[in-house]
Order: sequence, then structure tokens, then C-alpha cells
Amino acid sequence: MSGSTLGKLFCVTNFGESHGPAIGCVIDGCPPGMALDVADIQRELDRRRPGTSRHVTQRQEPDAVEILSGIYEGKTTGTPIALLIRNQDARSKDYSNIARTFRPGHADYAYWHKYGIRDPRGGGRSSARLTAPTVAAGALARKWLAERYGVRIRGCMTQLGDVAIPFEDWRHVGENAFFAANASIIPQLESYMDALRKSGDSVGARIHVEAEGLPPGWGEPLYDRLDADLAHAMMGLNAVKGVEIGAGMLSVSQRGSEHGDEITPAGFLSNNAGGILGGISSGQPVTVSLAIKPTSSIRTPRQSVDLDGAPVTVETHGRHDPCVGIRATPIAEALLALVLMDHALRHRAQCGDVQVPGRVPGSVA
Amino acid sequence: MSGSTLGKLFCVTNFGESHGPAIGCVIDGCPPGMALDVADIQRELDRRRPGTSRHVTQRQEPDAVEILSGIYEGKTTGTPIALLIRNQDARSKDYSNIARTFRPGHADYAYWHKYGIRDPRGGGRSSARLTAPTVAAGALARKWLAERYGVRIRGCMTQLGDVAIPFEDWRHVGENAFFAANASIIPQLESYMDALRKSGDSVGARIHVEAEGLPPGWGEPLYDRLDADLAHAMMGLNAVKGVEIGAGMLSVSQRGSEHGDEITPAGFLSNNAGGILGGISSGQPVTVSLAIKPTSSIRTPRQSVDLDGAPVTVETHGRHDPCVGIRATPIAEALLALVLMDHALRHRAQCGDVQVPGRVPGSVA
Amino acid sequence: MSGSTLGKLFCVTNFGESHGPAIGCVIDGCPPGMALDVADIQRELDRRRPGTSRHVTQRQEPDAVEILSGIYEGKTTGTPIALLIRNQDARSKDYSNIARTFRPGHADYAYWHKYGIRDPRGGGRSSARLTAPTVAAGALARKWLAERYGVRIRGCMTQLGDVAIPFEDWRHVGENAFFAANASIIPQLESYMDALRKSGDSVGARIHVEAEGLPPGWGEPLYDRLDADLAHAMMGLNAVKGVEIGAGMLSVSQRGSEHGDEITPAGFLSNNAGGILGGISSGQPVTVSLAIKPTSSIRTPRQSVDLDGAPVTVETHGRHDPCVGIRATPIAEALLALVLMDHALRHRAQCGDVQVPGRVPGSVA
Amino acid sequence: MSGSTLGKLFCVTNFGESHGPAIGCVIDGCPPGMALDVADIQRELDRRRPGTSRHVTQRQEPDAVEILSGIYEGKTTGTPIALLIRNQDARSKDYSNIARTFRPGHADYAYWHKYGIRDPRGGGRSSARLTAPTVAAGALARKWLAERYGVRIRGCMTQLGDVAIPFEDWRHVGENAFFAANASIIPQLESYMDALRKSGDSVGARIHVEAEGLPPGWGEPLYDRLDADLAHAMMGLNAVKGVEIGAGMLSVSQRGSEHGDEITPAGFLSNNAGGILGGISSGQPVTVSLAIKPTSSIRTPRQSVDLDGAPVTVETHGRHDPCVGIRATPIAEALLALVLMDHALRHRAQCGDVQVPGRVPGSVA
Repeated sequence: MSGSTLGKLFCVTNFGESHGPAIGCVIDGCPPGMALDVADIQRELDRRRPGTSRHVTQRQEPDAVEILSGIYEGKTTGTPIALLIRNQDARSKDYSNIARTFRPGHADYAYWHKYGIRDPRGGGRSSARLTAPTVAAGALARKWLAERYGVRIRGCMTQLGDVAIPFEDWRHVGENAFFAANASIIPQLESYMDALRKSGDSVGARIHVEAEGLPPGWGEPLYDRLDADLAHAMMGLNAVKGVEIGAGMLSVSQRGSEHGDEITPAGFLSNNAGGILGGISSGQPVTVSLAIKPTSSIRTPRQSVDLDGAPVTVETHGRHDPCVGIRATPIAEALLALVLMDHALRHRAQCGDVQVPGRVPGSVA
Repeated sequence: MSGSTLGKLFCVTNFGESHGPAIGCVIDGCPPGMALDVADIQRELDRRRPGTSRHVTQRQEPDAVEILSGIYEGKTTGTPIALLIRNQDARSKDYSNIARTFRPGHADYAYWHKYGIRDPRGGGRSSARLTAPTVAAGALARKWLAERYGVRIRGCMTQLGDVAIPFEDWRHVGENAFFAANASIIPQLESYMDALRKSGDSVGARIHVEAEGLPPGWGEPLYDRLDADLAHAMMGLNAVKGVEIGAGMLSVSQRGSEHGDEITPAGFLSNNAGGILGGISSGQPVTVSLAIKPTSSIRTPRQSVDLDGAPVTVETHGRHDPCVGIRATPIAEALLALVLMDHALRHRAQCGDVQVPGRVPGSVA
Repeated sequence: MSGSTLGKLFCVTNFGESHGPAIGCVIDGCPPGMALDVADIQRELDRRRPGTSRHVTQRQEPDAVEILSGIYEGKTTGTPIALLIRNQDARSKDYSNIARTFRPGHADYAYWHKYGIRDPRGGGRSSARLTAPTVAAGALARKWLAERYGVRIRGCMTQLGDVAIPFEDWRHVGENAFFAANASIIPQLESYMDALRKSGDSVGARIHVEAEGLPPGWGEPLYDRLDADLAHAMMGLNAVKGVEIGAGMLSVSQRGSEHGDEITPAGFLSNNAGGILGGISSGQPVTVSLAIKPTSSIRTPRQSVDLDGAPVTVETHGRHDPCVGIRATPIAEALLALVLMDHALRHRAQCGDVQVPGRVPGSVA
Repeated sequence: MSGSTLGKLFCVTNFGESHGPAIGCVIDGCPPGMALDVADIQRELDRRRPGTSRHVTQRQEPDAVEILSGIYEGKTTGTPIALLIRNQDARSKDYSNIARTFRPGHADYAYWHKYGIRDPRGGGRSSARLTAPTVAAGALARKWLAERYGVRIRGCMTQLGDVAIPFEDWRHVGENAFFAANASIIPQLESYMDALRKSGDSVGARIHVEAEGLPPGWGEPLYDRLDADLAHAMMGLNAVKGVEIGAGMLSVSQRGSEHGDEITPAGFLSNNAGGILGGISSGQPVTVSLAIKPTSSIRTPRQSVDLDGAPVTVETHGRHDPCVGIRATPIAEALLALVLMDHALRHRAQCGDVQVPGRVPGSVA
């Protein structure tokens, strides 16, 4: 029942703290015989890595991953794959001050009241650094999904604070620090972040991820629906406060005649469902949108209490992302891959790999 | 790994189809010694029951629950509690026509491609009728949470289609068919629904639920965060397309100085977090908001395909909710109760029942 | 984490008490499209049924099973299959006396100290009656295993008290009340049981079950090995105190040169492994042996204590099996089927249905 | 559903292969605030370590453990504890020969047919070396059980091949290479092993472990009984072919009047139950006995087949334990600790820490 494990058949067990010796994960349930090189994983880790632009935390971490098990002669063996990332830039400093107060909006208050103990160094277990092992595990899942089923997973930022980022083209995503599918808006985003950083404040973001090419039939009727497990995975990511599938919150004001995606022999005519009907994939692209809250560690002074419940003023200095959403795109992609892979295996267990005839293609362009 | 089981320590396993002999659930892990009467469960089922106003499906189901096990002399024994609800108004009719086509936006397409077989009677397993056992199980959880920790769970509809429903007072919720915390808007909602019904279309809704009085400390850092498990449970409910915790999607455009809830010895000054920090309850009210899509079974003719992939026009007649959101409030309350109870037990397992000193009250009024 | 659920992919959740309204189970994860008739289940239940000879409890229970869900037009749909068995012969009597004392060797002492409450009617949840739903679920598993893989599951009693029962032929098993694969020994067993019944005492038994025809590859290296899960399932059966795989306890005094089963192109030359190597099936018959303790409910007076810890003398009258082992064979077969089916699905999830070449046949006759 | 995870609330996820870079585990669910030093773990690892006498494998492994996470200032934080053990003495050699044949009685045949790939180096994942992380995790469990409940866990070898080892005194166990609770028999055991080694053969062993001091109430009625989970854990250990609780296989020939342990206000008068009644602890010592088969890697030539199914003769040279049972005692103790801890937490989750009055002491001396 391990709370630190994601997935039921493709199981990722995460460990580590921001400033402990290492972070990592154990992946259990990977199908045998998949070629896997450390570079396959490193590539995804590098997309999430801190210190790569002035808009993210300046902590310098190579995030170099070591494969400890589960690979023999370049192939997965079917046994657990343990991945290890040593923490490098965990600055030695005095945490006795920070350890006695609680940051508004930060996990430290809740941790303290849960455990009666907390590791204050860099946020300990609550640090966004713990998303690195998730990204590493996701690299395996996306590789398997691509090779086995031709599934392609992509993502981009669609809003930064109150700046909407219109979609232009997927090819822009890799060319800017924001994972924006838009080239022309980058100067505006950069100015926005520069001003924000100066102000000592932080801001939220919205991320969109999608998977194309998966077959219909992945997921379950209830409670472990594909959308439910996606919501679980995404809301389990640090700072996420909202998750939408397909039309999401907009569905509230839609009519049934507008929301229900019509089907033709050539494919679906729209995708309000976000590729999931009744908890099960329809063969359309699976689309998910996330709201990421602004970072709680800001320089702006704020009211709080200390360990004894006495009033204090808190301002947080040090290395922090002014918008954790900036690095969230590859993480959300990884989570999407992990959930899909888990359900691919679950489907295969119960229903085998047989395809029912009469399937239509995905969305009509 | 049962996909039809919700919860890891307070486990609800759901079974049944819309027009099969019966629906129900088995609840495993209930603490022993809690007084439980069938009326405790029936009360919640009656809130969700169909046929109670002209705005919901006219199917007549008493939803009378029978307790099959786990109770002795009016108390829970700690062993599984099985609940049974016989289907009564499952009309005998010819489903051969409906069974050959797929409704746009309906689960039937996905079920067919998953299983290669489907039960077309009333939607089979994909029917919203399957939420009744969830509500029944939720009744136990909310009773235990109330008695053991003083937790109070409430909910209301906050939007119907494009009509926002301003909050007036909780006492109104039980006095109208919409679970609206507002008396003056009821005539407008009724006209809205009457017109909708005539038009043969359907509409979405937004539901808000909250829990007050729970202690800080419930939840886990990752992946099984309290918010993640709430998102899983809520997105696992039929027709839900979006889930928000606290400020939800609004967090995207908030600054950190605005979003992070300040703390004083008298309590928190706001609740953008929705009572959850770092995946763990803070002691503030836990607040969740859901977007429910419009029903897919509508009279409006729509393009679709049949089992062979050939084009057809589909219009659905029969008894359907023109807005499934109308009956969703007690279901979302039940899901909130179930997730909280599961985490209450998980917390007790790992950390015992000890309270860490220095806790502040919940939100300042 | 439901303690009352067996299996991870083919999940059986058991509910009920000896004298409550009903017993039953919910089976989640059954592959869709398997033909299933109530008679397929009833046949196995009838083999386990009480009251069928003078050597077992005289409680009269038809054990008529009702399928509540998961079947449409005679086939499994892939959704949960709920099975219900109403208790019929739950005699109304005064349990106030029995409820204040503990029977030596009986679960009632442990239940009381666990839950602080217990259902004394017929042993409540600890009754061997709760094996009926297990047998019902097992009927599905053995049907699927037979149809899909040609697996055949059989069992017999190999010892009754101190009387060893030499194996003669499988065809005898269905012809006597003891599930003995031996015709000539029946008169001796009957006299033995008649004398035992008169003496007011009870006795243990040894059961052997085996599965032939399964492919190599089912199971996992650690901890959820096929043998480990078999041991879990079998030791989870009432009154079992020992479980052996293959050579079992005899392995202690064997040499490696004697124990390790030699392999030839025509098959394995012996089966000390019991068909499992390193936790994974080898393709040989899987063989399991169980030790079942004597019933604790006996007429012989015995020392014990009451609820206050005061000394009492206990003797138990009423309807009890003088040897619970007599009805254990079909239950052990069902457990073997359930574990194999679960691992068949687990294997298919991770490794697909592909067969690796170079496999040898099972045991050489 | 990770097959490499043991426990549901105190979860140990094991990774590694005999000759890979490292082995280890992640422990999730440990209660916070327990003092833990690396020496607490190393002490237990050293008891299991290879190369410590001439009777075990001569592989030299310091088995030095590194704690990667979950500890802050010498205390558990409640977050996952990752333990890492680097493999040191993984000799580089040519495995191409061994990789084409199967050893009779060895896991390699089953692995090959499961995965279609296998790591032949030192047995890969099937190596007994993978018990080291289990022992490390067990060190935490036994420390917590001792500090929180006063539970004491001990074990000894009771039979080596056909030599029974009569119990003399627990203090002898730490004074010989066999974990024998007997000093006088050691010369005989040493001669026995010396002769065996010379003969190129291997032999089995029987191990006894027990836990004293636990309260009544741990466990569940079915299927996850305490005895079932013990059987699962023990049978999940390499080479185990039989598991007994209390009187074990002997129960078959016992009468109920002999087997059922009588209770007096001063305690139980015997312990045939092995401390478990109806799947739940009774407060008596929990006693478990294991049969460990002889090692399959022996020098004696044996018939087998190769990857193509062609006949070959196999003899295995290299560093192997001629009796894996010799090092099994600390492993079985660790497994006992892990299962008890898991059920301690499960019990606390459902029933709290309240003690029901009227409890009697454990066994009368």
C-alpha cells in the first residue's frame, strides 16, 4: 500500500529528499526484452533539470542517473529496475531558523503535524526535486509505449500567470525555456519572469499534455478509470491544484449536443472527451490540462506562526523556482506515460492483446 | 488490484449493472464497534435516489439497502460489510437496436472496444446508477469521521449550465431539487431545466464539496497525496471532466503572495490551498470542486457509427437525467468521506493517534 | 489493501458470517467473453456442501448461489461478478453462554482481543462456512484455466488422523465422502470416523492438490512467487497449519543430487520441485500438500477462561465437523485455481502471451 | 501490485541481481521518530554475510549498507528509507557456457521460459544474495517491534540434512556457524559439512523462528491472516519448500483434545497453535518452521537440456553454499519481523491501539 508507489502493474517507488545523499526510484513490472540505454533516461532528465535558464532555480544538479539493476546486455530483464541520482549541490547551511517557522502555502506545516519531525533542508521530501525519479521512470514508459503501440506523448505550457500562450506549433516547444508551443511570445514571457523575479514574488502556470496513437480499450469502468488514474497522478505532482480531461471545467456550461463528440467512419469530429469515455480510452488523443500554483517560497514577507504557534513574519531567500510550472511539462508528460503504461498492462492482463474490429481512427484533423 | 475497489484501508468494492439483478458493494476495513443502522445508510441513498423530481430520470427505484454482513447487534464487527440493493424498475425492452450503435460521448464505444462485449441495458456498468453503492459506503465513512473526529461534510451545486449559483446559506441545500445553497435562484433553475428538457438536450454542472473539522496530518507526500486520492475518486465518478482543490484552476493566474494562505495563532487567513499542503491536510476545510459534463443520452440526432463502423444517426429516447450533475452532490460528498476515512486510517497506521502540539485552528471566519 | 481480498488481478473479495443473512464474494478482473452458467459454480459448491454424509456437520445448507452481476447473455462481461449465497439453516438459539467463554484452539479468543466485539453465532466470520464463496470463485478460475490453457486441477485426501491413504486412482475421489483416491480403504475411514464421533473428539487430515498442463513462466522471482502466493492462499484457509510444495518438509533431509529434478528432452524425470523453480512455474504439475488441524469445537471438557479471565471448563455441543479436513479438498483445489489464474493474468500483463521456444514437456510418466 | 514488494503498510521493495552494480530496497511506511543508525542494520547483515565460515559460499562481500533517504538527524522521518549495498566480489568471468544450459532444480529454466531472457551471472535475480536487503529491512522492523511492543524475535537451525539438532539454549546460537541452539553437536555438524563439500553435493535444513511478547489481535480473519502472510513471506524465500505454524504437519495426526491449547488465568498450557488462532495472534509466541531444500548448484554431474531443448550433462563449479539453510536463520527472523510489523500497523489502522481487558499471559513455562 506504499504511498510512494505509482502504478499497479508498472510500479514506480520513489525515494529521497532534496538534500539527502540521493534520490531515485525502483520500477517493478517492466516487460522484459526492451532495449534500454542510460541515455534514454538521461535525455528526459535533462529536459527537467534545474539551473538551465535564469527563470528557474539556480541549483546546479547534473541529475546523472545510474541504473543499478534490471538491465542485462542492454535489455530489460523483467526484474526491478533501480535508478539512482546522487544529490550534488545540496548546500551546507544552517537550517535551524527555517526549521522553526512555517512558510504560508508550504508543505512544512502539514509535515510537522503529520510526522512530528521534518527535514527542513530544501523542503526535504516535499521538494519538487523528487519529480526527477518520476521523469526517469516515465522515460521507460514512453519508450515502451512508442515501440509497442506507436503512442506519442507531448506537452506544452499554455498559460504563464495571466499570459495565455496560443498554440502555434509543437516544434517550438524544445526551443525555449518555457516549453511554449509558440515562438513569438517568448520575449513577453521572459520580460514577465524577469519582472516577477525582481518583485520577489512567484506565479502559477497551466500545462497541457497529450498522448496520440493509443488504441481504444485502456482503462476500467470504475473506480480505477483511466481519467481517474490520470487525475491521481497529476494531482500528486507538487503544486498542482486542478486537473482537466478534454473540455475540462468548460464542460459545465456545454450542452450535450455540443460536448458529445460525433463519430464518423473517418474518425471523431471533435475531442471534448479528451480521448476517454466511461473511464476507458476511445482511441482519440488523451488530453490533460493542469493548473500549477505559484511557489510558496517567496521573498515577500508574510504572516505565519512558529513551532509553538506564536506569530512570526516569514520571508524565504535561497534558490527557488519563481514558477515551478516552467519545468512541469516534462514531468506531466512522464506521468501521462506512466499511467498509460500501467493501464496498457492492466488491459493486456484482463483482455489480452486482441483487437475488436470496427474501430474508427482518432480525431479528424 | 481490483479496479472496482476504492481505498486502500477502508476498501469499497463495487458491483452491478443498471439492469442486472442487483447492485451493491463490500466494505472491508471498517473499524469495529461503530453503531450502524440501516437507516444511517438509507438516508444518504434517498438523497441520491432517482425519480424524486421532474428534473431527473423518471426511473422509479426505492434503492432499499440490505446489510448482508459485518454487523452484529447493531454494531460493526470489523469484518466486511456487504450492502445489497435490488434493481426494481429495470424495464424489459428490446435493446437489439441500441446495442448496434454508439452514442456520441457515451461509454458504449469504449466498452465495446475494450471487452468485445457489452451489456446495453441502461448503460450496463457505465450507468450512473452504480454511484448508489458509493453513496451507501460513504454513509459509513461520514458517520465514523463525525463521531471519531468531528468532521462535517457538506456540498452544493454552484453552477448549472451557464447559470452560476451564488452561495447564500447551507440550510437551503436540502430544500430544493438542485442541492443549491440558494433559495432565490430556484425558480430560474427550474425554468432552465424545463426548457432544456423540452429541447431534448442536456447540460453540465459544477459541484462544490467540503469537509470541516479534520486534523492536520492526513495524507502522504507523494504519490498518494490526499489531493491526489481526492482527484482520483472524483474523476472516477461518471461524467466528471475536471477536479479542483482550493483555488483550483484559478491558481494559474495567482501570485505566490496572494495564493499562499497566511497563518496566525487564530487560524489561517484564507484557504486557497483547499486545506491541503504538500499532499497532507492542514486542518483547514478541505474543499473540492467538480465539473460534470452534460449527459450523452439526448434526443437530438447525432452522427455516429455502428458495430461495423458504418455511419448512422443516433438519437436516444427513454429515461435519462438531462443533467446528471443534479444528483451528483451527495455522491461527491460520499467520495470525499471515503477518501478522508481511508487517509485517517492510513495516518493512524503509520503515525498513531498522537497530536503534535502547536496546531492552529482552521480558517478564520 | 482489503484483507478479505485474494488475488491481485483476479480479485476475490469475500464477505459474510456463519449465521448472518448471507455469504458471498465479488470477483473483479475476470476476462470477458467466457461462457458461464450458474451450474458451473453450483457443481463445485455441491462438492463442498455440508450435510452430505454422517461424517460432516449436519447443518443443512443448499448453498444455492445467485449471480448478481457481471454476466450478460451467458457470458462474462469483464465487470465484477458478485455471487450471493443465502444462509438458510442458521438455527436461532441462545448464544449468551458461548459468547462469554473461549474454546481452546478456537479463533474466538483472538477475535475478542482484536475487535473487542465478536459474533458468537456459529463462529461468525471464523466459520469454515466462509470457504463456500472461495469455492464458488474458484469454479470460474478453473473453468478459464481449463479452456484457455488446458490446465486440469485435482485433489485428494492423503491422510486422515494417523491413517495414511495410499493413492490408487483419481477416479475414486468422487465416489466417497473423504475425497480419497482409494476405494479399499473407505470402510476403515468410516469406522475411524464413527469411533471418533462417539468419543466426542476431532482429528486432523492431510490434503494433496495438483495442477497439470500449465505452461512454464507463471510466478515472480520474489516476494510474490507462485509458491509464496500458494502458501498464502492455503495457509489462509481455516485450520491449515502447514503447507508443502513438491517434496516439502522432506527436502530437509534430501541431497541436492536427489532433490534437483533432472531434465530430458522428453520431460522432467521427477518432481521434487512441485512444478515451481525460483518462484516460477516450470511446466511440471504444481503440487501442494496441506496439514489441517483437528476442529476445536469438541465435546471433550477442556480448561479455559471467560471474558473476565476467570477459569472455566468448556465443552462444545452442536453441529460441528469432527474433521474439517474431510470437506477441504474442493476448497484447496479452488485456492490452487485462484492463485494460478491470478499469476496467469500477471504473467500475461508483463510478458504477453508469447511462448519461448525450447520448452520440454512436464513430468515423464 | 509490484511482485517485488513485501508488506502492505510496511512495504519493502527489493531490487538487484547477484552480479549487477548493487542490491538494495526501499522501505515505505516506517513510523516517524524512531532512532536509527546504520549499525542497527549492519549488525543483522553481518549475521547473514557470506564468506564467514568454510561451510558457506566463499564469495567475499562486506555487505556494507548505505542509507540513502528517510533519516534526518538520526531518526526516521516517516518517508521512504532507501538502502543500498554495492556488489563487490562479482567476479568477471565467461558466462556464455552456463547461459546455454539449465541446472536441474535451479530457477534458470523457469526464468528463461518466463522472460525469454536471463542474467546468468551468479543466478541473477534468483540468487540468495537478494535476501540481504530483506535482512536489512527486517532490522528496522525488529527494532520498532522491540521498542514499541517489547517483541523479541529469535531463530535457530533445528535440522541439518538428516541430523536433528536438539534445542539446548538460545545462547549457543550466536556461537557457531550453524545458528544451532546447541553447543555439543557442533563437531558433528562440521564433519557432516566437510564430508558433504568433498562429495560435491548439497543438503537441506530446517529452521525454526519465533516471536515472543506480541499482543493478541494482530492479523485478519481471511484471506490475509497472520499465518497466511507468514507462509507467503517464508515460502517467498529462496529454496523454501515447506512452512509450518505451531504444530505444523504434525497437526494431521493430532486429536482436537490434544491440539487445542488449554487456557488458564496464568496463561496457555501449550502452543500447538503457534500463537495464531483464526489468523489472528493470541498473545502466545508465534512459531514458524521452514524446510529449506538442498542447493541446486552442485558439482555432481546431472542430466539436463540446453536452450534448444537438446540433452546435456551439467555440473556446476564456482562459489556456492553447499547448504543455503546455514545462512537462513537471520533471514527467516527478518521475514518474521517484517510480517509482524506490517500486521501491527494494519491492526493499529483498523482498531487503534486500545487493549481489550481479560487478556491472559502467553505460554506457561
